Amino acid sequence: MTYCVAMHVADGLVFICDSRTNAGIDQISTFRKLFVFSAPGERLIVLQTAGNLATSQSVVSLLEQRSRGSGTHMLNVTSLYDATVLVADTLREVMSRDRSKLTALIDLSCTIMVGGQIAGAEMGIYNVYAQGNFFQATQDTPFLQLGESKYGRPILDRNLTYHTPLDEALRCGLISFDSTIRSNLSVGMPLDLLVYAKDSFAAKAPVRIHQDDPYYSHIRRQWSDGLKNLLADLQPPPREFMAD
Amino acid sequence: MTYCVAMHVADGLVFICDSRTNAGIDQISTFRKLFVFSAPGERLIVLQTAGNLATSQSVVSLLEQRSRGSGTHMLNVTSLYDATVLVADTLREVMSRDRSKLTALIDLSCTIMVGGQIAGAEMGIYNVYAQGNFFQATQDTPFLQLGESKYGRPILDRNLTYHTPLDEALRCGLISFDSTIRSNLSVGMPLDLLVYAKDSFAAKAPVRIHQDDPYYSHIRRQWSDGLKNLLADLQPPPREFMAD
Repeated sequence: MTYCVAMHVADGLVFICDSRTNAGIDQISTFRKLFVFSAPGERLIVLQTAGNLATSQSVVSLLEQRSRGSGTHMLNVTSLYDATVLVADTLREVMSRDRSKLTALIDLSCTIMVGGQIAGAEMGIYNVYAQGNFFQATQDTPFLQLGESKYGRPILDRNLTYHTPLDEALRCGLISFDSTIRSNLSVGMPLDLLVYAKDSFAAKAPVRIHQDDPYYSHIRRQWSDGLKNLLADLQPPPREFMAD
Repeated sequence: MTYCVAMHVADGLVFICDSRTNAGIDQISTFRKLFVFSAPGERLIVLQTAGNLATSQSVVSLLEQRSRGSGTHMLNVTSLYDATVLVADTLREVMSRDRSKLTALIDLSCTIMVGGQIAGAEMGIYNVYAQGNFFQATQDTPFLQLGESKYGRPILDRNLTYHTPLDEALRCGLISFDSTIRSNLSVGMPLDLLVYAKDSFAAKAPVRIHQDDPYYSHIRRQWSDGLKNLLADLQPPPREFMAD
């Protein structure tokens, strides 16, 4: 399984992915699911992937290989919309190439989120379905998720709005991952994280957060203790709710 | 969809169900999913149901009808284990009866939780699969869920143990429902609730909690405000996590 979140708030973008892949419960590995295409001062495009690893790796490899060539590629498209079209086209290309009698019973599909900003255009985050069509997050729904989305969703539904400050959006995202990792073994550390400040066009590399990361450990403990206290402080139930 | 929780803690049992059923998104109704078989001073058995409404209603109707007869029934079995076997047998009976060419493309299955206590025996909660086999909650895993279980699970995973006091288990359960209802439209109010104190053998009726219930509204607000403050109080992320 996989869990990825992308957030689009007024001040910027937040991307977080776990790194666990599994082919059955007894074949578990660590693979990066967050990829960056950047030209400092001009563009930053982030891809997050979930689903069949062979498919998603091939899509990223082709996009990277071609971005050193002369055609239309991730480093010369002029809008994030066009970058997303390119990702979707490449996804369909790989799915068509690898679909054969040999893979008839295998789910080759993968889903991809594309986010970032290209100079002269707005920031955005898109979700590309396995079929290649896609949609964009809006101010009403400022986040997208891939994979094991349910355990970590309530904290986002309750707290994340378009106007949430960037550092609070990041903390909200990290807590969403903590809840998911506690409840589903197939989502696991380390996490890959990238925070993008609006109009910065900085070519930042993703940050890797390991199990023993002091900051992540600290806020996980703060959150866990805080929830316990919050629950204990809730008004006691009325007599008629309780057993006699 | 449905969401039901059953908890077995040292001091007693907690049962909570939502009441929304849907056949497609445009056909939504309210149906009770929590049923009680009781003999004051001697037994209390609670059933919680999820899945095909025709199947679950038939199972409950047959169990009720037969408990006024002379054979083995819910009011004369001598252990909760035997009550669960009876529920499972009745589930298989209804599934066999209703399975035909007419229902070949319809999912007739339902899952049922059975919990309570019969004089002379221990309390317990069981989960009956659609196939009729079943398992029991233990001290290591003191709760069971049916239906839309993921949104409301982190709060249970984090906070509920076998030694949680009964009133705190109830509050934990109600918050689990609040998180689920916020994130999934197909789980809805009112809730049906029953709290059973160990060895009480009280024949309590379930309590119905409506949308505007003052206690539920109050703790939902307390929880929501508390989470916001907790998130705001988390240590700010280190500089290297943030955008330049």
